[in-house]
Amino acid sequence: MAPPDALEPTGRTTLRRHPERGRAGRDELHAVLDEALVCHVGLATEEGPVVIPTTHARLGDQLLLHGSPASRLLRGAAREGVPVCVTVTLVDGLVLARSAFHHSVNYRSAVVFGHATPIEDPTAKAEALHRLVEHVVPGRMADARPPSTKELAGTLVLSLPLDEASVKVRTGPPIDDEADLDLPVWAGVLPLSLLPGPPEGDPLQDHRVPVPPYVSRYARPR
Amino acid sequence: MAPPDALEPTGRTTLRRHPERGRAGRDELHAVLDEALVCHVGLATEEGPVVIPTTHARLGDQLLLHGSPASRLLRGAAREGVPVCVTVTLVDGLVLARSAFHHSVNYRSAVVFGHATPIEDPTAKAEALHRLVEHVVPGRMADARPPSTKELAGTLVLSLPLDEASVKVRTGPPIDDEADLDLPVWAGVLPLSLLPGPPEGDPLQDHRVPVPPYVSRYARPR
Repeated sequence: MAPPDALEPTGRTTLRRHPERGRAGRDELHAVLDEALVCHVGLATEEGPVVIPTTHARLGDQLLLHGSPASRLLRGAAREGVPVCVTVTLVDGLVLARSAFHHSVNYRSAVVFGHATPIEDPTAKAEALHRLVEHVVPGRMADARPPSTKELAGTLVLSLPLDEASVKVRTGPPIDDEADLDLPVWAGVLPLSLLPGPPEGDPLQDHRVPVPPYVSRYARPR
Repeated sequence: MAPPDALEPTGRTTLRRHPERGRAGRDELHAVLDEALVCHVGLATEEGPVVIPTTHARLGDQLLLHGSPASRLLRGAAREGVPVCVTVTLVDGLVLARSAFHHSVNYRSAVVFGHATPIEDPTAKAEALHRLVEHVVPGRMADARPPSTKELAGTLVLSLPLDEASVKVRTGPPIDDEADLDLPVWAGVLPLSLLPGPPEGDPLQDHRVPVPPYVSRYARPR
């Protein structure tokens, strides 16, 4: 049964391959978008498709995309009526089967279709920038200098409604053919996560400024 | 001066934003493609752009893309004359500036444009599958059962020539405005890497099969 907050499926969000990997809940969509640091924005240009990475954040049921007003592509994505596709992928582990054929990757991915519009209102734009920084480093906006009017004007933020989206998840051990189960080949999953190393202070900064706890104890939300 | 193995720039691979982040060497393109575990394939459909994640590998100057023959989208990408864009992004660190505006991400990304063709020849396809597995887990094909004729037929491998591509890299500390340098806000870089956790053996396997060194000492090539 679909959860009460289910995503409304459309032709292009209905999974044909591995439908068992589909997730219908809006909370699962939010979790994938919230954990991922970058997204890939696809749009069709006269020369063909273009896919560019950028940072994003979620504000309720809107996906915010960050760019520069000088970015041709994001300006292209912001034009009225231009369809975009934004995809986010989290790699969770490598799936080693006994057979080459059944090797796989454990992942969570989200695909969002729609039309993006630039956020123009200064108050809304300031809130969006706040979310974009907090998405990458939760807690940071308590310390960072907020954007000036000029900086706000120098930033392009697009908003894409989370109306048409799909989520796909592969999890668990390899699925080998019955006939291969006794092969003397190690099988299993090697989990992977994006983990922080030691913080590297700006060489231009006095070293007495302490590393804040949101940096020293950094972890992506899960 | 461009290196001797430089990528030939075209209109769409010429970086307009942050040209100083561009890298012109073919070896740098190869390194980004070789380290990344997944790529994002963009193509234009009648309904608009679609971006899907998949695994890839590099074989010389060809990018191999892995799929299922049942995947509508990869079959679409394999149709003659259909342009695709394949993008790979490695997140290397979070760049914390004193100002919200100058926050950034250290990354390496590659964008490849072109036309993909399915590999049909069984010998070439077997070699491509070998590369696809070895790309994800170097050393694995010494142990894994090689694909059968039926399994080869049940796999779609596309080949995309690395003829038109760009590489973009952001590295180093934040770049704050002069006027912000004395703010008492910690600034610097938090490095991030995709790291393995403890291997999880397949519950269907006898635990006496040892974990191979290419799993216990797993690291992405850099």
